[in-house]
Amino acid sequence: MTSTYNELVKIDKTNRGLANISERSSWDQETMMPSGAANQRSEETAALQEVLHERRINPRIGELLEKAVAENIKEKAKLKIIKREYERYKLIPTDLATEIARVTSEANWIWVEARSEDNFSKFAPILKEVVNLKRQEAAALSNDGELYNALLSSYEWDLKSNDLEIKFNAMRKRLVSLRNKISGSSVPQVKLNFEFDEGKQMKVANLIAKKFQFDFHKGRIDKSVHPFSSGSGSDVRITTRTNVGDPFNCFYSTIHEIGHAMYEQNISEEYFLTALGNGVSLGIHESQSRIYENQIGRSKGFTSWLFNVMRQEFGDFGISDEDQFYRLVNRVSQSFIRTEADEVNYNLHIMLRFDLEKSIISGELEVDDLEEAWNQRFYQDFNVKVKKSSNGVLQDVHWSYGEFGYFPTYTLGNIYAGCLYEELRKSERNLDSELAIGNTASATQWLKNNVQVHGSLYEPEELIEKTCGKSPTEEPLLNYLEAKYKDLYNL
Amino acid sequence: MTSTYNELVKIDKTNRGLANISERSSWDQETMMPSGAANQRSEETAALQEVLHERRINPRIGELLEKAVAENIKEKAKLKIIKREYERYKLIPTDLATEIARVTSEANWIWVEARSEDNFSKFAPILKEVVNLKRQEAAALSNDGELYNALLSSYEWDLKSNDLEIKFNAMRKRLVSLRNKISGSSVPQVKLNFEFDEGKQMKVANLIAKKFQFDFHKGRIDKSVHPFSSGSGSDVRITTRTNVGDPFNCFYSTIHEIGHAMYEQNISEEYFLTALGNGVSLGIHESQSRIYENQIGRSKGFTSWLFNVMRQEFGDFGISDEDQFYRLVNRVSQSFIRTEADEVNYNLHIMLRFDLEKSIISGELEVDDLEEAWNQRFYQDFNVKVKKSSNGVLQDVHWSYGEFGYFPTYTLGNIYAGCLYEELRKSERNLDSELAIGNTASATQWLKNNVQVHGSLYEPEELIEKTCGKSPTEEPLLNYLEAKYKDLYNL
Repeated sequence: MTSTYNELVKIDKTNRGLANISERSSWDQETMMPSGAANQRSEETAALQEVLHERRINPRIGELLEKAVAENIKEKAKLKIIKREYERYKLIPTDLATEIARVTSEANWIWVEARSEDNFSKFAPILKEVVNLKRQEAAALSNDGELYNALLSSYEWDLKSNDLEIKFNAMRKRLVSLRNKISGSSVPQVKLNFEFDEGKQMKVANLIAKKFQFDFHKGRIDKSVHPFSSGSGSDVRITTRTNVGDPFNCFYSTIHEIGHAMYEQNISEEYFLTALGNGVSLGIHESQSRIYENQIGRSKGFTSWLFNVMRQEFGDFGISDEDQFYRLVNRVSQSFIRTEADEVNYNLHIMLRFDLEKSIISGELEVDDLEEAWNQRFYQDFNVKVKKSSNGVLQDVHWSYGEFGYFPTYTLGNIYAGCLYEELRKSERNLDSELAIGNTASATQWLKNNVQVHGSLYEPEELIEKTCGKSPTEEPLLNYLEAKYKDLYNL
Repeated sequence: MTSTYNELVKIDKTNRGLANISERSSWDQETMMPSGAANQRSEETAALQEVLHERRINPRIGELLEKAVAENIKEKAKLKIIKREYERYKLIPTDLATEIARVTSEANWIWVEARSEDNFSKFAPILKEVVNLKRQEAAALSNDGELYNALLSSYEWDLKSNDLEIKFNAMRKRLVSLRNKISGSSVPQVKLNFEFDEGKQMKVANLIAKKFQFDFHKGRIDKSVHPFSSGSGSDVRITTRTNVGDPFNCFYSTIHEIGHAMYEQNISEEYFLTALGNGVSLGIHESQSRIYENQIGRSKGFTSWLFNVMRQEFGDFGISDEDQFYRLVNRVSQSFIRTEADEVNYNLHIMLRFDLEKSIISGELEVDDLEEAWNQRFYQDFNVKVKKSSNGVLQDVHWSYGEFGYFPTYTLGNIYAGCLYEELRKSERNLDSELAIGNTASATQWLKNNVQVHGSLYEPEELIEKTCGKSPTEEPLLNYLEAKYKDLYNL
């Protein structure tokens, strides 16, 4: 290792330490911060972001990058990522980065209030500011004038809106067709009508986390308005939420976030506080959260374990056996909330957001018209009318943080998860019987070895190719869904 | 306001925002951090401290200070403080500041473990590193070669070890004499023998906090190994702890920390994120915590309210009436733990620490010999033998954070509190009867108006003089103690 390389890595390490603190400060804002501290917090957040941005565009990084020599594949990957990030950050003026931090910190808090009051017009003014700032950021980043692509690239390097559209259109066709068949099915829907103590829900959520190998010495679980995962290495924190009538909201949000958390906890320790020390992209991140949540968590095997755990904890809750329970967990219905959506409808929720946020960023759609546009589109896609904002445009946290371009990575994650699951099943022949006794070890170990441990060493598609022996497509996901629901609904 | 002044204040504001985040990160470390994250945290803390230190010694601050003109008393006070801090920080090399942050973050965690295992030798190696670094810091700061004075000045500007010694010797005489009289008294000691549910203790602690006007919209209460207060403005957080056999540990730690918290919550909003936006010194800070805890919290009036609250919450806990309860709360005994000490012994605990830490910093006493020195001195001062480290040298958090020079500010705070209380009683004639119904408003309002609201506008002694009409001395405190205990023990 050259001294140039060492100096560069040292500067980078400090910046990543700061970024961790910044991320934990967001965690605090959503879990611990007193309600009256929002204004102060937005100033503090801005201060930290100003400093972090200045350090990220430190010209010394540019000088060192020109001279630094990588001596192996890991060093090469680190240099590539440091360079990519440096060149990206350099395009964003510090004042703009600071202002985005300040305004989104405040916007997040206003969103919490507006959501609890079901009042979009309370959120709209600050969302306008956020959109305006993110458009400025996109313009600064954009080479080709495609603002939305510039935003996408901060979550998934090289991802293009046009390619997503093609994929999404292909998926939509088969998903809608599947949904139509299901609604024509004569198999009766299983329904839940029971009150589930919220303290006990959290107890089960903690047990589930343990079953999925979450290391509580290196993380914690709390509650928040919107579930999320935060942190890396030895300090990874997830949140969930509870709803007395619907324990699956809590359990499957938990499993989803545990998927994210395991990715971060399982990254090779040697990558700690380096450019390889986080998940490589949001697409791959969501592949982990979604495969934990769906292919594993909603499988026949795992749900039979969960059924018995719930029977022990809550007593008879009106579901007679494992089979009925499996049908309940995988019931296809037109729900309002993305995070609670079944696997068939889920990607349609994403496509709605994708189209709306593209229009917002391009300027075709005004923030003031966003709620109406949401509700119209929702009716068109799901055939139900949104009656309150918290069931509609205010349900997700992302836009309050200015995270335009984040949503499509969920569907990308589903696509990657489809590929990984196809391969996992080939490799782990006893998967179903293991899951049925709550043993996720062979699945999680396989994901750890093939995906998680590598951190950012491989590019997203490269990682999937390496693991699955072919380029990722939506085929495995759609095949998996069609087979699963054919069985469930006797199609 | 000149543009020079404005630029300076803007730079200062960002640094204070960062400092707030740093302080909250310490709060997180002691309340929320998973146990396995200590190493990572020490790296992150070091990164933030490196950045903060670099910004605090930014030469632009020096240039601006030379030209900036204050247009009123507030601006003048801000410039004075910015200049003082800048010149102080400039003397400390960034590498040293960073290393202190890294090592103390780790040392704090090792202290937690060592304390829980009653094993000083587990803590000693890292404490040696801390001492070594703090000696380097003191040498960098010191003009006159007095290392300990250099450390003192970071808590109480201009405070000198020699002056403290003179004060402490005078106090020791009267305190020991008072204690001797008490131990010769024939008044029987009231004892407690009951198990107090820890959940209910926290419920009462929250009620107490409300009674003392703590604003939960701008703060929160959690548990930690060692109680502390953290934060400023609209985000002030305190911690407490519970002990099933001794609820006063919880209640009086809470009241103490609420005193600190009210100082920070009540500072004039216009000082938010400026050089005036925090308590002016630790001495004044401790005057608030100690006057809340003792002169108000342990008064006849307030304890009679507390007695009735506890009776409601815990039922009959073996204390017959308000008078017996008042005697219990103010019982003088040779306890091991400083934070639980009665008002007579408390300052003797401080003097022990003051002498030991002076010897550690001067190099006369080695860390390896510290526990033995503690135990010997404790026997000499309190006539009881320390049998476990958590009752002795490991009881306090301060040294793990490198906070040498902090302890004497508790006694200084007691002295200031004595002065303030003398004046408060003159001003608020109905104090006793108000406290007896749990109404602290006139006391807390008086302290808010005379002390808290000013933040760092006045120097510590200036503030006391302004409020009390004379320079602070230990006389009022000692007079108060002698009168209180004369009555309690029929002396």
